Amino acid sequence: MSERIAKADLKSKVMTAAEAAEFVNNGDKVGVSGFTGSGYPKALPTAIAEKAKAAHARGEEFAIDVFSGASTAPDCDGVLAEADAIRYRMPYQSDPTMRNKINAGEMKYQDIHLSQSGLYVEQGFFGKVNVAIVEAIRIDENGNIVPSSSVGNSVEYINAADKVIVEINNWQSLDLEGMHDIWSVPALPNRVAVPINKPGDRIGVGYIEVDPAKIVAIVETDEADRNAPFKEPDEVSKQIAANFLQFLEDEVAAGRLSYDGYIMQSGVGNVPNAVMAGLLDSKFENIQAYTEVIQDGMVDLIDAGKMTVASATAFSLSPEYAEKMNDEAKRYREHIILRPQQISNHPEVIRRVGLIATNGMIEADIYGNINSTHVNGTRVMNGIGGSGDFTRNAFVSSFISGSEAKGGAISTIVPFASHIDHTEHDAMVIITERGYADLRGLAPRDRVAKMIEIAHPNYQPALQEYFERAQSVQPHLSTPHDLKTAFDFHVRMLENGSMMP
Amino acid sequence: MSERIAKADLKSKVMTAAEAAEFVNNGDKVGVSGFTGSGYPKALPTAIAEKAKAAHARGEEFAIDVFSGASTAPDCDGVLAEADAIRYRMPYQSDPTMRNKINAGEMKYQDIHLSQSGLYVEQGFFGKVNVAIVEAIRIDENGNIVPSSSVGNSVEYINAADKVIVEINNWQSLDLEGMHDIWSVPALPNRVAVPINKPGDRIGVGYIEVDPAKIVAIVETDEADRNAPFKEPDEVSKQIAANFLQFLEDEVAAGRLSYDGYIMQSGVGNVPNAVMAGLLDSKFENIQAYTEVIQDGMVDLIDAGKMTVASATAFSLSPEYAEKMNDEAKRYREHIILRPQQISNHPEVIRRVGLIATNGMIEADIYGNINSTHVNGTRVMNGIGGSGDFTRNAFVSSFISGSEAKGGAISTIVPFASHIDHTEHDAMVIITERGYADLRGLAPRDRVAKMIEIAHPNYQPALQEYFERAQSVQPHLSTPHDLKTAFDFHVRMLENGSMMP
Repeated sequence: MSERIAKADLKSKVMTAAEAAEFVNNGDKVGVSGFTGSGYPKALPTAIAEKAKAAHARGEEFAIDVFSGASTAPDCDGVLAEADAIRYRMPYQSDPTMRNKINAGEMKYQDIHLSQSGLYVEQGFFGKVNVAIVEAIRIDENGNIVPSSSVGNSVEYINAADKVIVEINNWQSLDLEGMHDIWSVPALPNRVAVPINKPGDRIGVGYIEVDPAKIVAIVETDEADRNAPFKEPDEVSKQIAANFLQFLEDEVAAGRLSYDGYIMQSGVGNVPNAVMAGLLDSKFENIQAYTEVIQDGMVDLIDAGKMTVASATAFSLSPEYAEKMNDEAKRYREHIILRPQQISNHPEVIRRVGLIATNGMIEADIYGNINSTHVNGTRVMNGIGGSGDFTRNAFVSSFISGSEAKGGAISTIVPFASHIDHTEHDAMVIITERGYADLRGLAPRDRVAKMIEIAHPNYQPALQEYFERAQSVQPHLSTPHDLKTAFDFHVRMLENGSMMP
Repeated sequence: MSERIAKADLKSKVMTAAEAAEFVNNGDKVGVSGFTGSGYPKALPTAIAEKAKAAHARGEEFAIDVFSGASTAPDCDGVLAEADAIRYRMPYQSDPTMRNKINAGEMKYQDIHLSQSGLYVEQGFFGKVNVAIVEAIRIDENGNIVPSSSVGNSVEYINAADKVIVEINNWQSLDLEGMHDIWSVPALPNRVAVPINKPGDRIGVGYIEVDPAKIVAIVETDEADRNAPFKEPDEVSKQIAANFLQFLEDEVAAGRLSYDGYIMQSGVGNVPNAVMAGLLDSKFENIQAYTEVIQDGMVDLIDAGKMTVASATAFSLSPEYAEKMNDEAKRYREHIILRPQQISNHPEVIRRVGLIATNGMIEADIYGNINSTHVNGTRVMNGIGGSGDFTRNAFVSSFISGSEAKGGAISTIVPFASHIDHTEHDAMVIITERGYADLRGLAPRDRVAKMIEIAHPNYQPALQEYFERAQSVQPHLSTPHDLKTAFDFHVRMLENGSMMP
């Protein structure tokens, strides 16, 4: 591995993960690289978990606060949660073990807009960060870090930390170098505009600057990112995708979009993949992505010459596409830019480029409030991620979901969202397999019919009944509600296992 | 008045308000100037209302859509609502007559972030705007319009409209000229950064460009803005203000703020006025405001040499201060900048300057979700205004309110906010007369004790009881709720006239 450490005097810092874990102490605040299963540390988390278990076996306390880019993987969030080694976690997670700990009340988790998490560290809201643990493809001759398959909040954590531990992952292709674009907004009171006008603008350098004196350990790994295989979209996903593409066509017909001007932001999943498959055969050309993660569908669009550039902070690829990216990174880096998540998700740039945001949801209510995070109001799934960053500043914001879930036991259109992550002021277009509800320019009461139209027919009567009751029982009609029965769908779900009346 | 129309050939367009109202037809979309009772048209609304009443008397339909900057006045929103002359209204209102019509279900109202309302018109979400009606202090030699005491969305409405009607108000001082800074973001796909780094940066010109051919009518008026007299802050307001100032002091102590670096955004009202009175005697120097409206307290801070510059889109002054502003505009314009609301409230600039946002609220829930708009979830008061623009992008966001209202019948801290305008992801600090709850860095369950601490003692037991029940009845503890009883406070209010158990 020595050829991946270009600064000779740092080679003395190479050690085992267990040795490096000695730099992480009980109560520490630890910032890690990693975003949607890409570029997270592969070795230290297990070593820290072992250290925690040993401490717990001795009857000692051991728990740390973990700040990341976004989700990581079972061998990062999973092992740490399993070992009860985490006290507090932000800004996003999607690990089953960790999710269970959070919902059991055994771990603290704060769900923070991804563009703001690193910023809050910079702003001193979390005090001192003790250790940053970041995956890299190499360390350059000045001791700077060339990140791997994600950038995330690594810049902010490295800047804030006393100690930096680098994991050099030989599985990651050295050809990723040149794909990153590292630039930071100067700290207050000297902030300036982010000089990006188009998704493809490069404004920074290919490495993260670090004071080499802060690098206390370097650990070698050789493990693949957590890349989930691609699932063939089902019929419902295909129909949602078709409705989204119809929405795009209708925007073109209305003169608000051109076939040569679609800038995409897209959440991860089956429906986005189906949308991108649909775009392959569409009239849209020179598509650009200013988004959070690069997915298989974007790679296909690039290969087909339909997408000119994709700006993101991380990959979220199938194992097959991840191998392809490693093999052909040299070619793809002409079209792909990986930025710090503070920049990939920056409100300023999002508003400026004029993108169409498309994110999944758990439920929407009849007025267009969106729940992205909590099933039945109390059980967190993953987190808001970047959906707020994009929704709040998009040219058009959209949310997609099937109209029902759990085999029909859940309606994703409800009277009152049981947790609100995006308000009625921000969600513009809601899309299910039944069609799309365009809420732009509509007063609250006028949105209801549109929302009921895209609900599943099994739930349409109950939604209509709620709206009628809401208009009769309370005296005010700006946003009619019957607060006594507003959560009846959810209460039935809890009591009967189904929202169905 | 002729000296206020410098372009000679436009003098032929001078006519009465009734004549000018003939350019406004049933079904029209009409954009008006005006923001918080400043700079709204004083004559046309009454003339349009008369026209509507005459049409209704003949059995004809007459209703228009009205887009404004923000609130206007009884002789604008009030007379139009009274005459049932409005079909749809956006993005903000605060008129009692209009509010009643909206809550009676007789008028449609959409509550839109103030920085986005003009943008949505630009983006074509409202189709064609038929008429713009804007108040001006004068028309220059090129036919351009020099706005009066607010800028609001006048630029966007003038650009989008076929016809422009100008009200030249002789009550407004000609010395306001030079206070405005008119600059617009180029339309998509050519948007660029807003070149403001500091609240005092001037980037534009002092007038609104308009194609003189679009000016179909000029009407002369001589009426004061709707300026409400200043109320002496009561004890509760003074205590909230003291708690807010303590929060500022604590930020300085924590090293996150300096006595020479406070950039203020502040909603309108008694508490903000008490805060500004407190700042007069504080250690804070060179205070700057990047805010929506200039209030009496800011004028006092400028006079005392404590505030160097205030950037906003409008005045909201007492009658006495409005007279002073008219008399001394020449002096104040060294310190005051009036911008289009798309710029005064621009997310990009708000994030860049690093301001502390302070806005009122109707209620907050135990997890920090904020209701800014709807009493008991259904009755709209005013609207979200710019509170979202600022909260979502502030260095620190704060919300202020007394802990109870209506003589104790209402607790402003509730189990579940009955309408959510700002989510738990965005509200950082909640302040009542009891203290401040700093929610930064806290997982949801850890916020509850802090929120109950600032609730009124009369309601603390019921809030605590709810939280305990929430943790026992539902199986998931990420954000504990008992959805069956989540709105019991509000249901009691509706049924018994008090939230008290």
